[in-house]
Amino acid sequence: MRVTILGGNGFLGRKLAARLARDGALGGRPIAELTLFDLTEPARLEAPFPVRRIAGDVADQAAVGGAIPPGTEVVFHLAAVVSAQAEADYDLGLRVNLHGTLAVLQACRALGTKPRVVFTSSVASFSGGQEAVLPDDARQLPTNSYGAQKAIGELLLQDASRRGFLDAVNLRLPTVMVRPGRPNRAASSFVSAIIREPLLGLATDCPVPESFAVWICSPRSAVGWFLHAATMDTAPLGLDRGINPPGRSATVAKILEALERVAGPEARARVRFVPDPEVQAIVEGWPAAFEAERARLLGFAEQESLEELVRAFVAEDLEATRRDRGL
Amino acid sequence: MRVTILGGNGFLGRKLAARLARDGALGGRPIAELTLFDLTEPARLEAPFPVRRIAGDVADQAAVGGAIPPGTEVVFHLAAVVSAQAEADYDLGLRVNLHGTLAVLQACRALGTKPRVVFTSSVASFSGGQEAVLPDDARQLPTNSYGAQKAIGELLLQDASRRGFLDAVNLRLPTVMVRPGRPNRAASSFVSAIIREPLLGLATDCPVPESFAVWICSPRSAVGWFLHAATMDTAPLGLDRGINPPGRSATVAKILEALERVAGPEARARVRFVPDPEVQAIVEGWPAAFEAERARLLGFAEQESLEELVRAFVAEDLEATRRDRGL
Ligand SMILES: NC(=O)c1ccc[n+]([C@@H]2O[C@H](COP(=O)([O-])OP(=O)(O)OC[C@H]3O[C@@H](n4cnc5c(N)ncnc54)[C@H](O)[C@@H]3O)[C@@H](O)[C@H]2O)c1
Ligand SMILES: NC(=O)c1ccc[n+]([C@@H]2O[C@H](COP(=O)([O-])OP(=O)(O)OC[C@H]3O[C@@H](n4cnc5c(N)ncnc54)[C@H](O)[C@@H]3O)[C@@H](O)[C@H]2O)c1
Repeated sequence: MRVTILGGNGFLGRKLAARLARDGALGGRPIAELTLFDLTEPARLEAPFPVRRIAGDVADQAAVGGAIPPGTEVVFHLAAVVSAQAEADYDLGLRVNLHGTLAVLQACRALGTKPRVVFTSSVASFSGGQEAVLPDDARQLPTNSYGAQKAIGELLLQDASRRGFLDAVNLRLPTVMVRPGRPNRAASSFVSAIIREPLLGLATDCPVPESFAVWICSPRSAVGWFLHAATMDTAPLGLDRGINPPGRSATVAKILEALERVAGPEARARVRFVPDPEVQAIVEGWPAAFEAERARLLGFAEQESLEELVRAFVAEDLEATRRDRGL
Repeated sequence: MRVTILGGNGFLGRKLAARLARDGALGGRPIAELTLFDLTEPARLEAPFPVRRIAGDVADQAAVGGAIPPGTEVVFHLAAVVSAQAEADYDLGLRVNLHGTLAVLQACRALGTKPRVVFTSSVASFSGGQEAVLPDDARQLPTNSYGAQKAIGELLLQDASRRGFLDAVNLRLPTVMVRPGRPNRAASSFVSAIIREPLLGLATDCPVPESFAVWICSPRSAVGWFLHAATMDTAPLGLDRGINPPGRSATVAKILEALERVAGPEARARVRFVPDPEVQAIVEGWPAAFEAERARLLGFAEQESLEELVRAFVAEDLEATRRDRGL
């Protein structure tokens, strides 16, 4: 089978590509070819199948068409402009997150073979805030342009699924931690930074109080959910292609306890609390918990513990992050 | 004040324009100029203020810019491809209903003066079907491309309101009856036809059974809601710009009783029941009732009775319809 990852050079795109390379297969069927597509040419990948690495803009219909060749059975659409950047540059967010998703829709439709599309929507498409525990049929009332654009992408792909152009699963991902590398332009960047920076021996500012709760998952869980979404039977989904996967609700205090258990009190002491109203204005609208019953019934696996999550980051990403940042 | 009606040559656009011409004012302030914009040049309108009549495509950014001149305080965005047509021609629906709404957004944003935008979304953006009584925070899970495109338009205008580009009210209109003229390409066309055709002395087919319930309103109520949406204080809306106005849930049987009260049993006998699976597939997904509490609290007026609605059609539109159709 042929597989494409759009946004294949990003945090989750690389994790997913590495997992596919390790497995050599998807849903028990060997992968014949993998296409990685991103703004800059995706990094080289050792794999038991040919890997095409393409640089291009997801909002460019012809480029996306080239990235989704005939015979493509699964498209992971991860290419996006993230929350704080889509808030700062409205037109860029629209172009990538809305017109980009439209281009993906049309490229899949042009195949005529109804490929599975796994789309990464976000918890940021909901509101509700700290008190909320969102049921599976909660409406999406986004508090930010990124969330609005993700909700729009879901509506487009859901309708395209109903019409039989493609076969989408829209995963509303929690905030994924621990993100390797540098802080990024997501408003939730601090959620990873308060683990990663102390483990690198660096001080970091936390823009929200210890009591602040976030709905999180690990990259390992996210990739597991991608594979399940790519291979599951979508008939039970009916019209409703949106999935709130079973993440975990965690306060900053709980996250820092896990850090302390893994790396000691001196690591935890590197986190300073410095309120940032701009970040707070975005993240305080995001719901801190979901029921996620439908996803469990549909076979999406449970999130591991915070301590396992921190240990997995140390085992898999800490060294590479240190190297990348010249530390 | 300057006012624009996009889709100004349509059923509701003409009704609204006539009402503005009669009032000469909006929200107590005189209208200095009215722009009517539609695919074909809008019909001439007698009014106490200058009327610009412009032919153009709402998906054409430059044309829409010309229809929303500096100083425009209120834009009624009614231009749309309706349900059965958007289902039959996906790309046309996308172009008019999605890219058209984007063009309206950008034209309003370019003014820099945050105009009020009254957007006509639809009951067709919801699902639920015959058993549903939708609460005000019901999610939109559309069963058709038109409904998906309307929900997307709402998300775009809601986010643009939050950002301060414009100041939108998204009205999810019930099925408006009685529509004058000819049957149109809306899947709900029969809801008007079962009143209009018998009153014209013509036989007509009803594609759903007598027990089928629809969420309806009159054109008079719709225009009243447009004026309220154009002039209300939007601060109490907060993030949520969507309004489910207080329509009325009516079965086909109740509608035909009203017809009989106004025009006698011989009129009612002109309606034959001929099931149409294609129409049923679209309309059976639309919810038959809403709570509409929020709209009532916000001052949206109650719908008149079915009998008054039929009498208003007879008084205002029957003669013109007869003339238009050469009967
Ligand atoms: N990481 C999270 O916490 C999180 C949470 C919810 C949802 N998501 C979603 O998951 C997906 C992957 O997230 P991530 O953390 O890997 O993000 P990331 O920013 O690391 O990766 C996104 C990739 O998209 C690429 N991209 C941006 N604009 C592009 C364009 N015009 N054309 C082609 N590629 C373009 C970027 O170069 C980047 O490599 C995104 O869609 C994101 O919105 C992530
Ligand atoms: N009438 C109803 O029952 C009902 C119910 C719910 C929502 N609505 C919405 O209310 C609005 C008005 O409805 P209506 O019944 O007057 O519909 P209508 O079809 O009579 O009017 C819509 C107008 O939009 C115009 N239009 C279509 N494509 C265009 C384009 N590309 N550029 C410019 N103009 C274009 C058409 O020419 C038409 O005059 C529409 O947005 C409709 O979706 C109507």
